[in-house]
Amino acid sequence: MVAGMPDLVTLGEIMLRLTTPGQQRFVQAPHFEVTPGGAEANVAVLIAQLGGSAEFVTRVPAHDLGQRAVDELRRYGVGTRQILRGGERMGLYFLEQGASQRPGRVIYDRAGSAFSEAKPGDFDWEKIFAGARWFHWSGITPGVSESAAALTAEACVAAKALGLTVSFDLNYRAKLWSRERAGEVLAPLMAHVDLCVTSAEEAQGVFGLPVPESGPERERVAAEALRERFGFGRVALTMRRGEVADRTEWGAMLLSGGQAHFSPRHEITIVDRVGAGDAFTGALIFALLRGDAPQTAVHFAVAASTLQHTISGDFPLFTLEEVEALVRGGSGGRVAR
Amino acid sequence: MVAGMPDLVTLGEIMLRLTTPGQQRFVQAPHFEVTPGGAEANVAVLIAQLGGSAEFVTRVPAHDLGQRAVDELRRYGVGTRQILRGGERMGLYFLEQGASQRPGRVIYDRAGSAFSEAKPGDFDWEKIFAGARWFHWSGITPGVSESAAALTAEACVAAKALGLTVSFDLNYRAKLWSRERAGEVLAPLMAHVDLCVTSAEEAQGVFGLPVPESGPERERVAAEALRERFGFGRVALTMRRGEVADRTEWGAMLLSGGQAHFSPRHEITIVDRVGAGDAFTGALIFALLRGDAPQTAVHFAVAASTLQHTISGDFPLFTLEEVEALVRGGSGGRVAR
Amino acid sequence: MVAGMPDLVTLGEIMLRLTTPGQQRFVQAPHFEVTPGGAEANVAVLIAQLGGSAEFVTRVPAHDLGQRAVDELRRYGVGTRQILRGGERMGLYFLEQGASQRPGRVIYDRAGSAFSEAKPGDFDWEKIFAGARWFHWSGITPGVSESAAALTAEACVAAKALGLTVSFDLNYRAKLWSRERAGEVLAPLMAHVDLCVTSAEEAQGVFGLPVPESGPERERVAAEALRERFGFGRVALTMRRGEVADRTEWGAMLLSGGQAHFSPRHEITIVDRVGAGDAFTGALIFALLRGDAPQTAVHFAVAASTLQHTISGDFPLFTLEEVEALVRGGSGGRVAR
Amino acid sequence: MVAGMPDLVTLGEIMLRLTTPGQQRFVQAPHFEVTPGGAEANVAVLIAQLGGSAEFVTRVPAHDLGQRAVDELRRYGVGTRQILRGGERMGLYFLEQGASQRPGRVIYDRAGSAFSEAKPGDFDWEKIFAGARWFHWSGITPGVSESAAALTAEACVAAKALGLTVSFDLNYRAKLWSRERAGEVLAPLMAHVDLCVTSAEEAQGVFGLPVPESGPERERVAAEALRERFGFGRVALTMRRGEVADRTEWGAMLLSGGQAHFSPRHEITIVDRVGAGDAFTGALIFALLRGDAPQTAVHFAVAASTLQHTISGDFPLFTLEEVEALVRGGSGGRVAR
Amino acid sequence: MVAGMPDLVTLGEIMLRLTTPGQQRFVQAPHFEVTPGGAEANVAVLIAQLGGSAEFVTRVPAHDLGQRAVDELRRYGVGTRQILRGGERMGLYFLEQGASQRPGRVIYDRAGSAFSEAKPGDFDWEKIFAGARWFHWSGITPGVSESAAALTAEACVAAKALGLTVSFDLNYRAKLWSRERAGEVLAPLMAHVDLCVTSAEEAQGVFGLPVPESGPERERVAAEALRERFGFGRVALTMRRGEVADRTEWGAMLLSGGQAHFSPRHEITIVDRVGAGDAFTGALIFALLRGDAPQTAVHFAVAASTLQHTISGDFPLFTLEEVEALVRGGSGGRVAR
Amino acid sequence: MVAGMPDLVTLGEIMLRLTTPGQQRFVQAPHFEVTPGGAEANVAVLIAQLGGSAEFVTRVPAHDLGQRAVDELRRYGVGTRQILRGGERMGLYFLEQGASQRPGRVIYDRAGSAFSEAKPGDFDWEKIFAGARWFHWSGITPGVSESAAALTAEACVAAKALGLTVSFDLNYRAKLWSRERAGEVLAPLMAHVDLCVTSAEEAQGVFGLPVPESGPERERVAAEALRERFGFGRVALTMRRGEVADRTEWGAMLLSGGQAHFSPRHEITIVDRVGAGDAFTGALIFALLRGDAPQTAVHFAVAASTLQHTISGDFPLFTLEEVEALVRGGSGGRVAR
Repeated sequence: MVAGMPDLVTLGEIMLRLTTPGQQRFVQAPHFEVTPGGAEANVAVLIAQLGGSAEFVTRVPAHDLGQRAVDELRRYGVGTRQILRGGERMGLYFLEQGASQRPGRVIYDRAGSAFSEAKPGDFDWEKIFAGARWFHWSGITPGVSESAAALTAEACVAAKALGLTVSFDLNYRAKLWSRERAGEVLAPLMAHVDLCVTSAEEAQGVFGLPVPESGPERERVAAEALRERFGFGRVALTMRRGEVADRTEWGAMLLSGGQAHFSPRHEITIVDRVGAGDAFTGALIFALLRGDAPQTAVHFAVAASTLQHTISGDFPLFTLEEVEALVRGGSGGRVAR
Repeated sequence: MVAGMPDLVTLGEIMLRLTTPGQQRFVQAPHFEVTPGGAEANVAVLIAQLGGSAEFVTRVPAHDLGQRAVDELRRYGVGTRQILRGGERMGLYFLEQGASQRPGRVIYDRAGSAFSEAKPGDFDWEKIFAGARWFHWSGITPGVSESAAALTAEACVAAKALGLTVSFDLNYRAKLWSRERAGEVLAPLMAHVDLCVTSAEEAQGVFGLPVPESGPERERVAAEALRERFGFGRVALTMRRGEVADRTEWGAMLLSGGQAHFSPRHEITIVDRVGAGDAFTGALIFALLRGDAPQTAVHFAVAASTLQHTISGDFPLFTLEEVEALVRGGSGGRVAR
Repeated sequence: MVAGMPDLVTLGEIMLRLTTPGQQRFVQAPHFEVTPGGAEANVAVLIAQLGGSAEFVTRVPAHDLGQRAVDELRRYGVGTRQILRGGERMGLYFLEQGASQRPGRVIYDRAGSAFSEAKPGDFDWEKIFAGARWFHWSGITPGVSESAAALTAEACVAAKALGLTVSFDLNYRAKLWSRERAGEVLAPLMAHVDLCVTSAEEAQGVFGLPVPESGPERERVAAEALRERFGFGRVALTMRRGEVADRTEWGAMLLSGGQAHFSPRHEITIVDRVGAGDAFTGALIFALLRGDAPQTAVHFAVAASTLQHTISGDFPLFTLEEVEALVRGGSGGRVAR
Repeated sequence: MVAGMPDLVTLGEIMLRLTTPGQQRFVQAPHFEVTPGGAEANVAVLIAQLGGSAEFVTRVPAHDLGQRAVDELRRYGVGTRQILRGGERMGLYFLEQGASQRPGRVIYDRAGSAFSEAKPGDFDWEKIFAGARWFHWSGITPGVSESAAALTAEACVAAKALGLTVSFDLNYRAKLWSRERAGEVLAPLMAHVDLCVTSAEEAQGVFGLPVPESGPERERVAAEALRERFGFGRVALTMRRGEVADRTEWGAMLLSGGQAHFSPRHEITIVDRVGAGDAFTGALIFALLRGDAPQTAVHFAVAASTLQHTISGDFPLFTLEEVEALVRGGSGGRVAR
Repeated sequence: MVAGMPDLVTLGEIMLRLTTPGQQRFVQAPHFEVTPGGAEANVAVLIAQLGGSAEFVTRVPAHDLGQRAVDELRRYGVGTRQILRGGERMGLYFLEQGASQRPGRVIYDRAGSAFSEAKPGDFDWEKIFAGARWFHWSGITPGVSESAAALTAEACVAAKALGLTVSFDLNYRAKLWSRERAGEVLAPLMAHVDLCVTSAEEAQGVFGLPVPESGPERERVAAEALRERFGFGRVALTMRRGEVADRTEWGAMLLSGGQAHFSPRHEITIVDRVGAGDAFTGALIFALLRGDAPQTAVHFAVAASTLQHTISGDFPLFTLEEVEALVRGGSGGRVAR
Repeated sequence: MVAGMPDLVTLGEIMLRLTTPGQQRFVQAPHFEVTPGGAEANVAVLIAQLGGSAEFVTRVPAHDLGQRAVDELRRYGVGTRQILRGGERMGLYFLEQGASQRPGRVIYDRAGSAFSEAKPGDFDWEKIFAGARWFHWSGITPGVSESAAALTAEACVAAKALGLTVSFDLNYRAKLWSRERAGEVLAPLMAHVDLCVTSAEEAQGVFGLPVPESGPERERVAAEALRERFGFGRVALTMRRGEVADRTEWGAMLLSGGQAHFSPRHEITIVDRVGAGDAFTGALIFALLRGDAPQTAVHFAVAASTLQHTISGDFPLFTLEEVEALVRGGSGGRVAR
């Protein structure tokens, strides 16, 4: 990875996340913990934490809460030189962790945010992409506003023109837009995408692809359908199974070169669900950037996202060594001392 | 439910609960979290949180800790206009949460409390019950003191005279009185009770009813025996099974119209055990008040109490929508976003 | 004060206030404390805490943060039956307390709030004002949006038609609107106002009244000018003097019946500045409602607001006895025991 | 000071103190901080912290909260071997710190405590006092209950019989008993007292001694009157002056050998008032035990209690070196580094 | 157990443990919780908590952090009269709790600590061991430094000469020394040991004993090999099985009189792993000191260490009654009330 | 200021600071707050916070606590690319804030730190200083170890050779070395220094310069003596006066071009003393870098350090706008809203 040049550029909204402590409810918590988060920012942090270089492109207001977001990105090694200042408000989201049969809850409060007002022409993509190898965005970015959707398209075109690999994580959010609207906006953007990360359920819901309800072939069929419809070079599908808020089974499949590569599955006791999918995507990008074979890459990415289920906050705060130790087989849960 | 008139009136003691944070022990915690609680107050809060109206009748001292208890009830929508001020001290209880093989522990400190000194004649029941449909109390209320037992009897007589449905939750507390003494005091009060909530174990221990030690017929036999002995219109029995502090299996049975209706059973990872039984009772009352069929009602009540196992504090802080979502089948534990 | 009927009705926005703990800065605090606040809500809480009855009229979103605001009002005894549910977001404000030469800072985040979308016709004023004696609003309410300004006018007209006393606290916020715009919007509303609360500085800045820069006659001149221009029955002006964030000198003057009544002045070490002015206004209304003479009323109001400088949070959490003890002369600072 | 033998024995009640954090009020604090405290326990801790040996005699319940109190005493070096286990409840007190014009508030909750039930015959004074040089108690101890008053008398008689010096700190608590009742109970016990610590105000209020309202002779006159009435060998009077909760002027006078010795006065910004008087008394005893001259002793004792005003909690947590550094003249407030 | 004389003496280093709260990572936690810990100190606390008497021998710096360590030992009833003051720094260790597939992590910071400089001749063993019955140390003590190893040998020789039973817990720490170095230093000390506590894995790794990789005979073979090689009177081996940070299966075997005694096994949800092995060792010593039969002793010791897995902090904070309740069969996880 | 090139390079040790919360003592605090700090790092953060660019040169261990320090620097915009990884431990310091007559206390724990082992040859100064304009160090850096002193000399020589301005802040620490030793080590390094920041008291104590004990000429005489002895281009002396821990009077003088320029003096209520001197030095450098006249520069620097007295933590977290607002005259302490 070349010094001073980002391996990865991502575009999206970074929000302040306001989380009730422990398992407290919104109506009872005396304080909210403040951490940063956002699907693309999380991917950028993962690349930086593992030792790569990443630049995050966004727009934040020129006040202390905007600065807080920039500071948190810098803290974990993400490049912030391309971030614009302007607008009135930070995107916020409020999170209440679930427990057992009670699911976690999110209240988004991002309408009218500084990023939602970003528009084509605000960023100098030629400069931003100079020397970069990969551009990543998620379905949330164009979902934030019409101008953000146009901005996403602009960035995709520029990235492809400059020879970057483009990855896309569908990240459908029902509180942001309907499945139909998401499908309409996203479909035309798929032409610019090399790697698509999603789930069988999302592929069916947003793009209307015919996918079996269940069964061992579900992911393979969905991935093939995505590839066929949109011509993706690679498709990665995550697989989650669980009934309660604090336990999940987690794995993934990477379709690459016409081959489906399945990761092992982990039974996870969850500390914090949010950001686990982004950690998968980020780690997959990291693995592909460094040239891992598909099987190695998907194994690595699932290990990283397994760790992320145990981290408080959106940001993936673990090291390359920790991911690789889990790939190798773990510690039997003991404290290393 | 009629505006300005309570659906439900409950009588009992509200305490301040002082809980060590996390899993800390009494001897080590630097602070105790302060929340309100009490079996009947918890039932009143549940009715109010689900959208009904409830009035809580008690006596608290005329100082800021008494006011704190009133404030907490108001906060969650319970009527407090009938609460008397007087006496010297709030009932308190200290709680240390358990973990795995270590059970939770309670130290009661309620002797001499303002409520324990309440006595017949203190409350104007005709005014309190005006327009109300249901009166609820638990076995703790008469267990607090002799005058509280007399007060409970007075309230029961008045409630029946005014045509209210009366429910009773046995709630045996070994730290309050012996099984024998509880049986002696409670038995004569049973004549006023329409709905009795208890467990097979309590029915046997307190009323000396013959109940099989285990087996599929245990609850049915216990419920029939209770009905036979006391003439209850309905009997609800909760069923708990578990070996450790943080996991339980939980379900219930409602005997109504000679039929035993069993709920589904939930495997629960527990955040806070206290108040889960009260949530069952409150939700059962709520369901019966709105006219649910027995099977629907017991299913609903078990869903509510399952949620309550995941809530910090005695008070049942969830909404009707959340209970109904769990009745419908849950979210797979995912964060709704 | 008549049971079941509010002495006071207020109209305004209640916000969630997110405060950094201690003297921490926005960029460093790991969590924000969550408390409710808003100029008119603070007045309503004061009336309720002192033993009066108050109804707060607003609009909050139908989600848990909106419910949180309602719960906090109920907790401290304010009537919430007239609150509408709708819209998408709660008004928020972020607060960083100052210290010594570093002033406190506020970041407002209330654009697009549920209340800012409230409009004439949303509320049934005849029903709301039935039995009430006093209507209070502040300059923030019409400053929130054009529809809120129209709503304020509607409420004023209704209140006067129904014979209520109307009070107004100027509460100029530079982050909300310019002095000029505030003057334009507020001036026509002044015809409905009986009691105006402001400061000499605001009177000059917003209404362009000629007021001496300093000197013993400053407040008297300003009050007379206000009365002359707008025909107010009473004018109250607060007087603050200080150079640092944690100390202030504080007093007030009430012009009533052509007489200027000055309060004693207090040298205060400040815990939390926000809400102190609202406490003055609320306590003045309380005193006038119960028929205090002007001199007594202004003394009482300044004592209450002095106490409020020592309370964490916007809400005035103290009792009538505490205010009266301070009026009588205080405790020498000793712990009562 | 002889190893294994206490220099000082004290008798009294240790309570758990439940304090709202920061300047929060009882009605708003989400948690209460848990620390131990009690006038005589505070004196014992001071002796132990400065390097002496002290034994604390009391009775606590045989549960974890009683153990907590014993643990806290052990932690700071106080002997606990003579503490009895029994009874049902710990004495508690709730504390809300004041600020500026708002005084701190205490809610006592000690009725029916384990110690209030202690009675003559419970303790083996001969064994307890073996090798000890000094016995200390305060006016709170006999004020707790009639049996505690009888126990105090028993201990005084035994102490004098065994040749110990006996000190007494009046510590009048209006929430415990009336001035008249205190005077009646305490007066006969004064015959056993060698050193009396009080204030001019208490001397007048409780014993009805004629003391000037103010003026430079107030303390001297009060001390002489006390000596004359009760025949004390030494009388120490503390002098506090202040108008607000967080500032005080603080000094003392020691009448010894017919001479009045005045300490310097300190202007103190207060962290926590509670325990400051006990620190004075404890430090005075410490100084006299080691043979300080009266002037040195009163200077030392005022320095110690000045430090105690800056310590969170009742217990005097500072070292001999720190007291002596303040006696020598302080550090100019700088951090030693 | 004889009053004033310790049942048990232990020698080792007590450290301050700085733990991130909850599951937070070192790079994100705003504060670290401060608790004491150390293998031998933990054993001493266990003996004292269960009602025995224990003396802890170490060296701490003469500053407040050293005093903090002494205070924490005193708090929980451990004798501290033999602790030396000197040196510059406290041993520290930083702990980050694991979760699910993420193992806990420790950063030791004990080089150059006050204890690491302790050396033969610093302690008067004859005085220290006077009246004592048992001397315990772990493999960490000689691993800290060369002088500490020599000091350990000196203490062992003295203890045997004075007729004490000597126990040893291998406690291999890879971050302290290599397996080879540990074996070299420890082997000659084994001649003084009566009871050896370790695991099959450690026996093989450190002493190079031939032990089967798995299977039912693994522990028996390892214990026999240890006895044969070193002539131990008793050998106890703990057995842990698990794949994740928050769950473990836990049991033990005691070889005594040629017989292998196996405890039941517990499936544990873990609050804090650190100190669980020390609790086993301490409870085994306690049981043997009071004369339990081997089967009873190992059952008791595993129950105690099962409880310790649920306690925050190194120190074993539970009572004899709690251990015995778990031995008898537990509470079904219910709150006792 | 040139993009990508640091205005300022500093060399020194960054430590983790472990602070008791509020005014708690080391022996009582349940947790320690974790923040970064160090005289030179604080200067670098100030430059970056005000909008300049700064590079911090140090050596930290290759573990998570080392990474934490790097992260905190990055967070606030300081360049960290030149930081070496190696060694075993982070420098630590423990801080207890003072209050009133109780001074704050520091326990240093930096012996054997990663930085103390740094030595000449470890850093490529030519690369590090490329494009930079200013090199800053303080007397702590050479005081840490002999190799650090040699490294400091190496850096000074390189800086001067490359044409950088060199500033030096004496920062004498009695816990690090004696005055005599400091004088011996520092004196030869003064030849490389252009701007010397210290106090009259330090100048006298460390360099033995003849300085009047007090009086208006004290600083002027001291500064002239420093200039004469060492040939500094500029000398800045800070002036602190105060008797208690939480209040200070604060000002400074800058001798430049033979003229003494005095700042205004501020009466400050202190939140946190540590780092205030570094903020003065950093702000003075910032002002001189941008070409401020001496009088402007010293006024600006004192305003910045006044603000820093109100900030929790070593790092100067405020903006250029805030400093300039204070220079202009402040806000009267009001919240801007």
